[in-house]
Amino acid sequence: MALIVQKYGGTSVGSVERIKNVARRVMRARERGDQVVVVVSAMSGETDKLVRMASEIAGRPDERELDMLLSSGERVTIALLAMALIEEGCPAESLTGRQVGIVTDSAHTKARIERIEADRVRQALAEGKVPIVAGFQGIDEKSDVTTLGRGGSDTTAVALAAALGADLCDIYTDVDGVYTTDPNVAPNARRLARISYDEMLEMASLGAKVLQTRSVEFAKKYDVPVRVLSSFDEGEGGGTLVTREDEAMERVVVSGVTYNKSEAKITIVGVPDRPGVAARIFGPIAGASINVDMIIQNIGSHGLTDLSFTIPRADLARTLEIARGIIADIGAKDLNVQESIAKVSIVGVGMRSHSGVAAKMFETLAREGINIIMISTSEIKVSCVIDLKYAELAVRVLHDAFNLGAEPAAAEA
Amino acid sequence: MALIVQKYGGTSVGSVERIKNVARRVMRARERGDQVVVVVSAMSGETDKLVRMASEIAGRPDERELDMLLSSGERVTIALLAMALIEEGCPAESLTGRQVGIVTDSAHTKARIERIEADRVRQALAEGKVPIVAGFQGIDEKSDVTTLGRGGSDTTAVALAAALGADLCDIYTDVDGVYTTDPNVAPNARRLARISYDEMLEMASLGAKVLQTRSVEFAKKYDVPVRVLSSFDEGEGGGTLVTREDEAMERVVVSGVTYNKSEAKITIVGVPDRPGVAARIFGPIAGASINVDMIIQNIGSHGLTDLSFTIPRADLARTLEIARGIIADIGAKDLNVQESIAKVSIVGVGMRSHSGVAAKMFETLAREGINIIMISTSEIKVSCVIDLKYAELAVRVLHDAFNLGAEPAAAEA
Repeated sequence: MALIVQKYGGTSVGSVERIKNVARRVMRARERGDQVVVVVSAMSGETDKLVRMASEIAGRPDERELDMLLSSGERVTIALLAMALIEEGCPAESLTGRQVGIVTDSAHTKARIERIEADRVRQALAEGKVPIVAGFQGIDEKSDVTTLGRGGSDTTAVALAAALGADLCDIYTDVDGVYTTDPNVAPNARRLARISYDEMLEMASLGAKVLQTRSVEFAKKYDVPVRVLSSFDEGEGGGTLVTREDEAMERVVVSGVTYNKSEAKITIVGVPDRPGVAARIFGPIAGASINVDMIIQNIGSHGLTDLSFTIPRADLARTLEIARGIIADIGAKDLNVQESIAKVSIVGVGMRSHSGVAAKMFETLAREGINIIMISTSEIKVSCVIDLKYAELAVRVLHDAFNLGAEPAAAEA
Repeated sequence: MALIVQKYGGTSVGSVERIKNVARRVMRARERGDQVVVVVSAMSGETDKLVRMASEIAGRPDERELDMLLSSGERVTIALLAMALIEEGCPAESLTGRQVGIVTDSAHTKARIERIEADRVRQALAEGKVPIVAGFQGIDEKSDVTTLGRGGSDTTAVALAAALGADLCDIYTDVDGVYTTDPNVAPNARRLARISYDEMLEMASLGAKVLQTRSVEFAKKYDVPVRVLSSFDEGEGGGTLVTREDEAMERVVVSGVTYNKSEAKITIVGVPDRPGVAARIFGPIAGASINVDMIIQNIGSHGLTDLSFTIPRADLARTLEIARGIIADIGAKDLNVQESIAKVSIVGVGMRSHSGVAAKMFETLAREGINIIMISTSEIKVSCVIDLKYAELAVRVLHDAFNLGAEPAAAEA
């Protein structure tokens, strides 16, 4: 008998009919003899509706109140799913973040889980009930409601799986797993049977949008196997298992190609090359809660250097305003902006033991006449910033160059 | 400086614009120097929407889960109203039933308040904030969410006013007070400036539908003055004050005329007149949660008696089924049903010291050729069951006979 945490996203519980489907899926798992704990999100569209009302009331709604508002959505789905199970004769009990004892810090709208008590979850299991837990929410030490930020239900599920020592955390979503790349761009993209936590982290934060990054960090930290699968797929054994690295994974050099088309690049030209300058540039930008992604400092001459960085395009106007103030301040010469860029990355744990991966990426892009504007590398990832118009082409040629469309026998192990 | 609890019903917070209006009203009270605690219901229509979803999922939804579901509605309105106040520069804090410490029994969907801790309400007031409290909900000793039943937000407001020792509890609704009768039936119906708790109880339970009966019982028990007024009326000084009896009230014989057109009458004919028969009839009916209103036992002859009672017409089929089983059991002769009845009542604390009130009611009905089917009286009320088709006529002639359309000087004191 395994203990499985199942998490269903907003689309999977988006209507009464879909909630009934989820109930049937939960019951099938129980019939196989497993113990099941369910985590659900709000019905799709509900959170947006609430956010819209809040924005009609206040320019920047109070964050404590925003959490109170948004936490209402999961109460609806946990109650409806528990009703659906009880109606089918399966004992169930809905539990809020507070009732589960999901204690977070007080950073409203983006709280972090500090601990999970889970006494009532264990008690419900002991009584033969299916605990239905509200995702995305917790309470702080003051007993105020907090939320974990968008996609926070994934984190609830993984953290709860860790707290309960569950055997598996199944994340049901509207895609059937993690792909070698976006199938809309490369039609021969292939679903990965397994992927390591680190690869998944790089895939997710680079825009694969399947699992929330924080939930993967949690899964890695507590070694919780996570399976991503579709709630609309009736078969078993599908999905992608996100798990600790094994030998088979290391034999595959590149696991996936990702891209991000929503960034812009700013270059500050003629920055005096002296200690403390970078801090004076990036301090105020971070202070405005703007996420700087890549930072490249070119080799300087005559005591001057150029400094380039990328930020979400949506934050461009605010960043420029801040940057203009800074260049006068630090005595830099000029500032230029490149709005139409894309970042394309290859990810794979096998890179650690294979040389020449980056070189092969650069060659592949060069063969297509794609100029590389910025490069950044990590142990298991190489990212190149290129002209936006080449994004899809670059993804396709890299996907083919690293043989991702073919079915490698080792990765299916 | 007075401490005022203001309660806004679902219509008053039915849209973003209306929530902003409520915020302005709260701020005006603060500008007058009063301390304000606000209790709100869910947006109108929301509770019905949730109930509809539940009924699509289960024939009889689990009641614990129904409470979890329904309690989501008030979270939305408390958060939005708090945001609206904060946006206008008025410190505010939303509080759920749990955070306020509204502890109830565990009778899900119709829980009764056992105590109110209100520590966080007092704390918020001490910090100069407006506490915005979720009506209708509490938690039981197991820390499970409970609801107080339809109209329960009135009870929350009055109970909280009692717990805080508030000077006044203002109930904002979509009518501007309590009327001598239904203005749709008698166009010369007049708003009462004051009414006693007991009269209000009779008016409310007889169908005046302005305040939830339980909230009036609470107000009476703890002597909380309650004012019913419209949230769409911008002037001050309107509404009806529900308060303890005073001498001015006693000088008015009849305060109002109410009616109820949703009952049906059942007569069990030839009931053996011996001890215990009534219990054998009404025990099973009460067991099926059917509310019996009037019960009349006619004088018997030859050891047999007729027993008539009224019930909600909606429960007629179920009641008949039960009653048919009973008549065989107790050896009664027959059963007949009168579906088209109405109950018309006159209410007034002045009846206690005035004789001839009931006689005047009977005479007035007789003059119009209206036959009286059943009569029931209490200290401050006389009710007559009549043919349904005469309901409106009876209300109008009684309203005129007791001079309710005129403005009695004493009642305005």
